[in-house]
Amino acid sequence: MNPPRTDARRHHDPRVRGFASDNYAGVHPEVLAALALANGGHQVAYGEDDYTGNLQRIVRSHFGAGAEAFPVFNGTGANVVALQAVTDRWGAVICAESAHINVDEGGAPERVGGLKLLTVPTPDGKLTPELIDRQAYGWEDEHRAMPQVVSITQSTELGTLYTPEEIRAVCEHAHARGMTVHLDGSRIANAAASLDVPMRTFTNAVGVDILSLGGTKNGAMFGEAVVVINQDAVRRMKHIRKMSMQLASKMRFVSVQLEALLAKDLWLRNARHANGMAQRLAEGVRAVHGVEILHPVQANGVFAKLPHDVSERLQKRFRFYFWDEAEGVVRWMCAFDTTEDDVDTFVAALKEEMAR
Amino acid sequence: MNPPRTDARRHHDPRVRGFASDNYAGVHPEVLAALALANGGHQVAYGEDDYTGNLQRIVRSHFGAGAEAFPVFNGTGANVVALQAVTDRWGAVICAESAHINVDEGGAPERVGGLKLLTVPTPDGKLTPELIDRQAYGWEDEHRAMPQVVSITQSTELGTLYTPEEIRAVCEHAHARGMTVHLDGSRIANAAASLDVPMRTFTNAVGVDILSLGGTKNGAMFGEAVVVINQDAVRRMKHIRKMSMQLASKMRFVSVQLEALLAKDLWLRNARHANGMAQRLAEGVRAVHGVEILHPVQANGVFAKLPHDVSERLQKRFRFYFWDEAEGVVRWMCAFDTTEDDVDTFVAALKEEMAR
Amino acid sequence: MNPPRTDARRHHDPRVRGFASDNYAGVHPEVLAALALANGGHQVAYGEDDYTGNLQRIVRSHFGAGAEAFPVFNGTGANVVALQAVTDRWGAVICAESAHINVDEGGAPERVGGLKLLTVPTPDGKLTPELIDRQAYGWEDEHRAMPQVVSITQSTELGTLYTPEEIRAVCEHAHARGMTVHLDGSRIANAAASLDVPMRTFTNAVGVDILSLGGTKNGAMFGEAVVVINQDAVRRMKHIRKMSMQLASKMRFVSVQLEALLAKDLWLRNARHANGMAQRLAEGVRAVHGVEILHPVQANGVFAKLPHDVSERLQKRFRFYFWDEAEGVVRWMCAFDTTEDDVDTFVAALKEEMAR
Amino acid sequence: MNPPRTDARRHHDPRVRGFASDNYAGVHPEVLAALALANGGHQVAYGEDDYTGNLQRIVRSHFGAGAEAFPVFNGTGANVVALQAVTDRWGAVICAESAHINVDEGGAPERVGGLKLLTVPTPDGKLTPELIDRQAYGWEDEHRAMPQVVSITQSTELGTLYTPEEIRAVCEHAHARGMTVHLDGSRIANAAASLDVPMRTFTNAVGVDILSLGGTKNGAMFGEAVVVINQDAVRRMKHIRKMSMQLASKMRFVSVQLEALLAKDLWLRNARHANGMAQRLAEGVRAVHGVEILHPVQANGVFAKLPHDVSERLQKRFRFYFWDEAEGVVRWMCAFDTTEDDVDTFVAALKEEMAR
Repeated sequence: MNPPRTDARRHHDPRVRGFASDNYAGVHPEVLAALALANGGHQVAYGEDDYTGNLQRIVRSHFGAGAEAFPVFNGTGANVVALQAVTDRWGAVICAESAHINVDEGGAPERVGGLKLLTVPTPDGKLTPELIDRQAYGWEDEHRAMPQVVSITQSTELGTLYTPEEIRAVCEHAHARGMTVHLDGSRIANAAASLDVPMRTFTNAVGVDILSLGGTKNGAMFGEAVVVINQDAVRRMKHIRKMSMQLASKMRFVSVQLEALLAKDLWLRNARHANGMAQRLAEGVRAVHGVEILHPVQANGVFAKLPHDVSERLQKRFRFYFWDEAEGVVRWMCAFDTTEDDVDTFVAALKEEMAR
Repeated sequence: MNPPRTDARRHHDPRVRGFASDNYAGVHPEVLAALALANGGHQVAYGEDDYTGNLQRIVRSHFGAGAEAFPVFNGTGANVVALQAVTDRWGAVICAESAHINVDEGGAPERVGGLKLLTVPTPDGKLTPELIDRQAYGWEDEHRAMPQVVSITQSTELGTLYTPEEIRAVCEHAHARGMTVHLDGSRIANAAASLDVPMRTFTNAVGVDILSLGGTKNGAMFGEAVVVINQDAVRRMKHIRKMSMQLASKMRFVSVQLEALLAKDLWLRNARHANGMAQRLAEGVRAVHGVEILHPVQANGVFAKLPHDVSERLQKRFRFYFWDEAEGVVRWMCAFDTTEDDVDTFVAALKEEMAR
Repeated sequence: MNPPRTDARRHHDPRVRGFASDNYAGVHPEVLAALALANGGHQVAYGEDDYTGNLQRIVRSHFGAGAEAFPVFNGTGANVVALQAVTDRWGAVICAESAHINVDEGGAPERVGGLKLLTVPTPDGKLTPELIDRQAYGWEDEHRAMPQVVSITQSTELGTLYTPEEIRAVCEHAHARGMTVHLDGSRIANAAASLDVPMRTFTNAVGVDILSLGGTKNGAMFGEAVVVINQDAVRRMKHIRKMSMQLASKMRFVSVQLEALLAKDLWLRNARHANGMAQRLAEGVRAVHGVEILHPVQANGVFAKLPHDVSERLQKRFRFYFWDEAEGVVRWMCAFDTTEDDVDTFVAALKEEMAR
Repeated sequence: MNPPRTDARRHHDPRVRGFASDNYAGVHPEVLAALALANGGHQVAYGEDDYTGNLQRIVRSHFGAGAEAFPVFNGTGANVVALQAVTDRWGAVICAESAHINVDEGGAPERVGGLKLLTVPTPDGKLTPELIDRQAYGWEDEHRAMPQVVSITQSTELGTLYTPEEIRAVCEHAHARGMTVHLDGSRIANAAASLDVPMRTFTNAVGVDILSLGGTKNGAMFGEAVVVINQDAVRRMKHIRKMSMQLASKMRFVSVQLEALLAKDLWLRNARHANGMAQRLAEGVRAVHGVEILHPVQANGVFAKLPHDVSERLQKRFRFYFWDEAEGVVRWMCAFDTTEDDVDTFVAALKEEMAR
């Protein structure tokens, strides 16, 4: 067919992919098709549209009858909206030192929400009741920012996973101390795919109160949702979203993307594929002498340690990031569109550079 | 052709349009086509992609060689990022009482940016040097939030326009007092279309330092840009955008929309069409006895005063908003996709309801 | 007696007084004596001391059995702590355009509390139900900062007074709309003295929920208190005070000052005296041809309109401020230590300058 | 002599002292005398008074000809004003995990200043260039809050000291990376007394840019000052102080206290005394079998580890705090008014309780 007219031009080579980040990928074709489907005619702005209405039904099918979705623009927005919703002005958030909210959001939780983060070092990005207790105290002490919420990430920034039982333990521990639990689910689909359970199994079923549901890294163009599971834990979500500048006027186009992902199994297909590519990548890398894989590869990321000069030579051929440059640790991410060929080519290049 | 597969379904009737808001409209087909064009393959996230790079060229063609665009998600985001960029911690913003930043952003400027708004009542949504002076004083007085920027809107929230000379006067007045000028250009295209001049004529050519360039109301799916004209007035735009939660990971999809609008004349075609429909609507309404049109119809909005019960009956047939319910004032907005038929049908309905 | 040794020296002439501000005055000798009384030995810091405990009893005697005082450092601190206590993250404050929180606190409400102020122009600094309604709407509208509290000032920044009935009307109106009422009582003593009623008559008796109780302008060295009347309207006052940097470690020295003022009638004696001096000043000024007194002189301030050059000449002899320089309006304030002689000398000087 | 009349009463026993905190103490008599001296007559409010003017001269004598003091109410206020002054909206602060700003200010840096704290665990509360490097990176990375200032505490929260050379190394390291250095000098006098050097030796002489100068713990009633050493590092200090609610109206009474302390050697006498008492206490404690002293006793605090039940019994006789209850660590602080007798009585009681 002839493409519809547009004054925009293609500026990139759509055949090029890499391992730098799962958000270097574009949009899954089924999501793009959904966007077209939702176009045309007028729909009430700011969330009163039929797509956002329908999304509620879908979200309830995943996260229980009490769940409610609040579509937002991006992951930082989802996290900061969610955390504001479950804290008072005097509240603080217990999280892993490696949490995205602590290291990768430019201080947005502090600056936008006035939130104090009470961080805990972890070996693998995962909090436990014992680790939580490093910061869970002093609720009556006005000199201390009050711990009101525990924020965990699933799958974690290190590509590791909580089992449902581990999250249950976190939730029980937090609830027993009057705290709520937020789950940063920027890569929640990868976690569910890897655990081979529905998302509910490690969220509402085990006590998570509120979560950031990722769409972008799962194949959407943009768009995430704050999903409120425990309605008693929040108030005035809409006001918080608006004042946090995360209210989309043409919200149907966020909601329909999430519908495309979540209505049936696209979310799972995309996540399984990305995870599978990470497994293939890890397997390939393990066979390369001198390269060490650092964490269990449980989602779509591979962390590896290799000689610095090798990384630098390889980076001239493929863009990717150092995770800890001093330690020679790099991160390789797979996406919904990563191919077996991509992986094999990359492993071959790694082998070559190691052999030089 | 067969539409590509998607698990999402169409939930709305794409033949229905109304006059409630220009952001009830969907996406212009040429913008949608551009989104597809930018898809496929990997592109560096967070703005290092080729589309965002190319957008700079286009923005410079509109706003001068020193201009730089920082794509963001929405209008509130654009405004609050821009205003933070030109203020210090102790800064304040002079604006019209009716400004969107004052009445429609849920307190985001205050809450996210800690910004004090120094508001001035205006007859028509427009500031003048004299009106600015109502708040432009006390720079050395620590008891006062320091006026550092004047924010004007073009076209205004009341559908009125500044002439280029009026904006020049505002800029000269502000600059002479050490203040910068921000232009909220959520509907800047409508202004340029109505004035029949390039956008530069009333922005960089007359001294505007920074602006919020609207895409959403001009036919985009989502996406605006902060356009910095005077680079000396700002620092660390990228940090401000990120910490304000307005940094899109897959930014190519914001940039390509703005490209589709701005590369040639789609922005102008869309705006002219919407403005023309507003003229047709105004003309039709003027012929209805008992309905008063309130402001000069200079862009794509019509403000009218009519009996309250008529409005309410009409609202059962078409969704639209009261602007000032106590005064019986309503707002009708035209969009890029409003048809002559839509207008004529609406005017006929108005006539009917007035005649009841 | 010999003064106790100190390495500090006296740098000023303690015989010089003026009419610039009631906080140009020093400390009432009885307050100074109280400070000495509370000295010596150790007392638990941060408010668990015996003086702060005792203050509660005194405050309840003034404001009812449910009242609780939270001593703070200054008036801006009292206001911003109080307003944060009765608002959520999404809250807004309805106040007069001339309110101290709007014009004289350097944007602290916005910057520290993220508070949006919804201002209303008033003829005399006083809100009424009708004026409140100019901003009291849109609670369900997420685009609007939610009006949650009405803040009034007694006596006002213009030296005027609300009657108890007027405050009752404000409270009933606010409460009926789900809003609380805050009273900025920086000069509450002057109001009570002028109305010749106990402070309770126009606070707890008529529905005020929380107030800023001024000490500094009433003869203290420093120190105010947030007085919570309606305990249901607030939570975690201590956390809010601490995080707002208004928690004094050696709090006994704030509390004992308030005790010195409030335990018996020093607060009233000081206020009556200051008010009386303002009356004498107003009387004297009224007799000077060409000087116009602008508002009813109901507290300790006199606002007058006189030729600009006269003001400037007079300012060379006595320091005072223009209130509205463009309009030629000046403000003269009387304090607890203003003498009849001070007033008469000042009036004579005014007469002289008018006659030149 | 007869005490001056006051309606306040004495509510406490001025013979009782303890070891809970140096701010349980009252006011040094010479400071109280200074307050009386500054009373009487009118002085311009908000810092234009003669005492604040004179304070500048004194502060310059301590911290160099470029120094400038900005009196504030309390330590948290001093720190948050100072840190805001040397950061932009996007800035972050590198500090020890145990820093007061991180653990004892109720989140004020985050909530009032929007500041991100980048914390580093330390063995003894002291940062080093190597420890700073754990957080000093990523200035160009918009995803990271930008490290703009290193904040150190002298003496530290653990009663330890930096040598001047150690602070010089911190400053050189920070400056080489474009960062400024803030020193939290809540107990700066104790540090100078212990090091037996002027305060300048470890502040302006070695590169500190701005400091919080403590008065309260050194014998003042209330009051600290932000001292700006490097004027190029700050702007608009007065605006920042005001909007942070730390501007005292009757500022002469803050300034004269600092004058009483700093004009000659009261600051040093007080600090030496407190330090000496801590030495005596440490010596006494060391002689008690089973009690371990944890850090070098270099200022006025003693940290000890002893059986939990002993601590609890002792707390029934003397109020003091657990520093780390799980580890059985307690903190004992000496003040300017601690007597040898106080110490000996306390040590005897400790001995008794250990022997039970």
